[in-house]
Amino acid sequence: MGFLSLSFEIKEKDLLGRIGKLKTKTTTVETPLLFPVINPSSQPIPSRRLKETFGCQAIITNSYIIKKRFKQIPLEQGLHKFLDYNGAIMTDSGAYQILVYGEVEVTQKEIINYQEGIGSDIATILDIPTGWKVTKEDAEVTVAETLRRAKAFFDLKTRDDILWVGPIQGGRHLDLVAQSAVEMSKLPFQIHALGSPTEVMENYRYDVLADMILTAKKGIPIQRPLHLFGAGHPSMFALAVSLGCDLFDSAAYALYAREGRYMTENGTWRLDQMDYFPCSCPQCASETPQNLKLKPAKEQEVFLAEHNLHVCIAELRRIKQAIRDGRLWEHTEMRLHAHPALLSALKRVRNYEDFLENFSPTTKPSGFFYFTAVGLARPEIVHYRKHLTQRYTPPTEAKILFLLPQTRNKPFHKAPEMKKIRQLMRMLGKDLAAQVHICIYAAPFGIVPIELDEVYPLSQHETALPIDIETINYVADQTAEFIKRNNYMGIVLFNDKKLWNDAVKDAAQNTCKAQALTFDSIETTNTNGTRELLNQLLKTLQKQLELTENKKD
Amino acid sequence: MGFLSLSFEIKEKDLLGRIGKLKTKTTTVETPLLFPVINPSSQPIPSRRLKETFGCQAIITNSYIIKKRFKQIPLEQGLHKFLDYNGAIMTDSGAYQILVYGEVEVTQKEIINYQEGIGSDIATILDIPTGWKVTKEDAEVTVAETLRRAKAFFDLKTRDDILWVGPIQGGRHLDLVAQSAVEMSKLPFQIHALGSPTEVMENYRYDVLADMILTAKKGIPIQRPLHLFGAGHPSMFALAVSLGCDLFDSAAYALYAREGRYMTENGTWRLDQMDYFPCSCPQCASETPQNLKLKPAKEQEVFLAEHNLHVCIAELRRIKQAIRDGRLWEHTEMRLHAHPALLSALKRVRNYEDFLENFSPTTKPSGFFYFTAVGLARPEIVHYRKHLTQRYTPPTEAKILFLLPQTRNKPFHKAPEMKKIRQLMRMLGKDLAAQVHICIYAAPFGIVPIELDEVYPLSQHETALPIDIETINYVADQTAEFIKRNNYMGIVLFNDKKLWNDAVKDAAQNTCKAQALTFDSIETTNTNGTRELLNQLLKTLQKQLELTENKKD
Repeated sequence: MGFLSLSFEIKEKDLLGRIGKLKTKTTTVETPLLFPVINPSSQPIPSRRLKETFGCQAIITNSYIIKKRFKQIPLEQGLHKFLDYNGAIMTDSGAYQILVYGEVEVTQKEIINYQEGIGSDIATILDIPTGWKVTKEDAEVTVAETLRRAKAFFDLKTRDDILWVGPIQGGRHLDLVAQSAVEMSKLPFQIHALGSPTEVMENYRYDVLADMILTAKKGIPIQRPLHLFGAGHPSMFALAVSLGCDLFDSAAYALYAREGRYMTENGTWRLDQMDYFPCSCPQCASETPQNLKLKPAKEQEVFLAEHNLHVCIAELRRIKQAIRDGRLWEHTEMRLHAHPALLSALKRVRNYEDFLENFSPTTKPSGFFYFTAVGLARPEIVHYRKHLTQRYTPPTEAKILFLLPQTRNKPFHKAPEMKKIRQLMRMLGKDLAAQVHICIYAAPFGIVPIELDEVYPLSQHETALPIDIETINYVADQTAEFIKRNNYMGIVLFNDKKLWNDAVKDAAQNTCKAQALTFDSIETTNTNGTRELLNQLLKTLQKQLELTENKKD
Repeated sequence: MGFLSLSFEIKEKDLLGRIGKLKTKTTTVETPLLFPVINPSSQPIPSRRLKETFGCQAIITNSYIIKKRFKQIPLEQGLHKFLDYNGAIMTDSGAYQILVYGEVEVTQKEIINYQEGIGSDIATILDIPTGWKVTKEDAEVTVAETLRRAKAFFDLKTRDDILWVGPIQGGRHLDLVAQSAVEMSKLPFQIHALGSPTEVMENYRYDVLADMILTAKKGIPIQRPLHLFGAGHPSMFALAVSLGCDLFDSAAYALYAREGRYMTENGTWRLDQMDYFPCSCPQCASETPQNLKLKPAKEQEVFLAEHNLHVCIAELRRIKQAIRDGRLWEHTEMRLHAHPALLSALKRVRNYEDFLENFSPTTKPSGFFYFTAVGLARPEIVHYRKHLTQRYTPPTEAKILFLLPQTRNKPFHKAPEMKKIRQLMRMLGKDLAAQVHICIYAAPFGIVPIELDEVYPLSQHETALPIDIETINYVADQTAEFIKRNNYMGIVLFNDKKLWNDAVKDAAQNTCKAQALTFDSIETTNTNGTRELLNQLLKTLQKQLELTENKKD
């Protein structure tokens, strides 16, 4: 597998996430990738140690700050020697300082030349961040000016071996983000970045962030990597990767450490509130909070920075393994239960389900787990619904739709309950049985024709029981649509009231009424034993088949 | 804090989980506690290392197997020297072997004397496990025989310094579990255990397991610790602790390792399917799957055993920190998204919500996170509902109930939207305003009278938006109940259709109709600007107040 690109090759994918190889002039790195931010003036973990102990393949530093503070030295030594780091080095341009301070004391030409001069592997133009609470008019200005600078950049650059980042602006104004993405991707940048999401995250508006990322993704070529600036907390890596972000930078691992904050993939603690370290990293496995609190502040900071980084790196490995396993949705859904604002972002994905389905594999190495209606946006479910709507026709002889409830065991046709149904079909006789089309109503897919029930993933999934109401409603809607779309003459429903609370029954009945179809339903529970129940089903099917015969005449 | 007991002291609690101190003759250990199973014939991690490197305060071994294989040696050396372990040692009795092989070659007297002889700190009577697919009649026999043996035990024991475990049987027959728990707890055991859940877990029936644990818990005194036999996978520790289990044993960390299986708190991988280690433990932080796969089998086994144990221990620390933080529900809900069968267990908890509410603190050090309707079983929500139903009365002057939708910011009365409402009340004038009772309809609590909105946790929570339909229905039901229960003369509803989809409106309207109350609703969106909207609300309130006045006359 692999998708052609000059510097970026996609190896594996799931949802909009992918494992890729990004080729820089120094080294080839694997994505999704975290660039720890290096502050040469105050660095709790030496950059050499980042590579040797933590296995970091890349780091990022701020060229604007380096230029201001160290001037000629990095130019003379080269950035890699200056930072004592022989992996890939990305540089930011000072755009974040524009956002915070309003302006910077450097021109775009100067900072481009400086990044070229020090030998960055990945470098950034001097874009204008939009920010968070910005009117549409002001946002338009940042988008236009960023685009003007992006265009101007190509006349300013002098080296061809650096990967340049073209940032996308627009903030929460999604039409502007879309426009910015489309315009920026017309220019030959090797990498794009989503600008200034920091304030969005600080306000816990992960739903807006999801909108921004997905809008940007729709605008740029899928084979260009996307960097999410300032997204350094491991609780959101899974979300960002699922939505198509490939690169992250984290100053947080070090900044949090300085403030006594302990990161986990599920949230943040203050060291002074901790009694236990909920982590197995080398730091936490051999230390207690009680003991650490007695140590000098600098030691605490280094401990926390190392712990924080271990957590970030392990989470990215976890995400990569999930992509390989085809289980990125499961992993993300689980992680987003760290905070309601994160789960809100996943709920937003349903608005983009076609886009996700278009780019995500829908056949996986393993089955999938379905928990609640949030999962209805999964590519597998959207894909099946489209398939059933656009390409499926029932067997030509089918006149009666015989709807059975899902069984605990799958595939349905091998479940113990199906023995009785096959017995019933035999009692009906071969000719009549051929006119009865057995379909299963099942969460989360809706209607599953029995002849398809071994097609992936119709039996390769597990659903949390009891089924949540939103999923029940979805199945009921799918049932109604299925009846409307096809030309059955009657419906016999075997109603599992306990699990489905009559929702599928009501939907089927109302649809039959509107379409003038015969409808009968038999309760799975309302019976004097299996024999009597089978008899009841048999009689109902026979009655409907007879009606059908008469109508034909 | 602390609850009197001879050997067990509860220090902190949340849900039915607790942090406790269990005093054994060798040492005092902290619960929730995992006893790694020691097999003296084949032990991937030496027991001394378990204590020194992993900090394990206790281990468990099978006295029946030790007796069979090593006979006199442990009696002569003493168990602690024999196992080279100076922490607390628990022994099982061979009951599991009865379950697997049908019988054992030892009498209860022999195995009790043997456990006393070798000096176990915690020891187990020879109970008869019920097993999984067992008829009620057969289950009754195991319960009765276990009880008979439990009673006989007290005449057989000769030492008073050992903590003895009284197992509860009954399997999935909950009435038998209840009976077994009640009868066993009449006997002076220091610890109880839930017998043979292994097969229940192997069948992924965590919902049944939840029923079994909660049924047992209801039967035994809350201050006796409960051991869950054979529950060694970290993905279910949070569930088990939340439901009141204090002690666990894990053979799985070693057995899985032998089979090349890699545990995480979210599930299990096979080493041969792994490309990345999704973990930061000392093993995984410095090794890759590719490299490990090249090493000798024995090295792989030790690596995996150490990793598996790191994960188990970190998860128990995580759970303890969650108890301290009052966030055990959040932690458990997140963890149970590892598998739909685990989430099903949490859905089962709603059947026991009163029991949970009775024993769990409902005031916490921090706010809480609400994701979906699964959270409706939370003690905080049950507690508030009871409070509102049983002890709350509206202000005496209140005649009109003015229902406002929840705001993004909390507490409600400090939200920006409330400024306009206060303006409205001023326009109404002091006397009339006093007759209008402002309440908020809000997820997940239902109706929040404005004067209570700073009471914990009515403003100290975050809810995932959009709200799921089951939660919306709950709020709608609570609204209807609130109107029925109190004596308002009319209701004015400010309807946020976008968030609530008319569910609260319909519930309020229907209730008003049934109770012959005046009902008006104004849409938050259907307006020509804020001024016009306020005017509309003002007129409606004035109209209803006038009607009220007339009715009084």
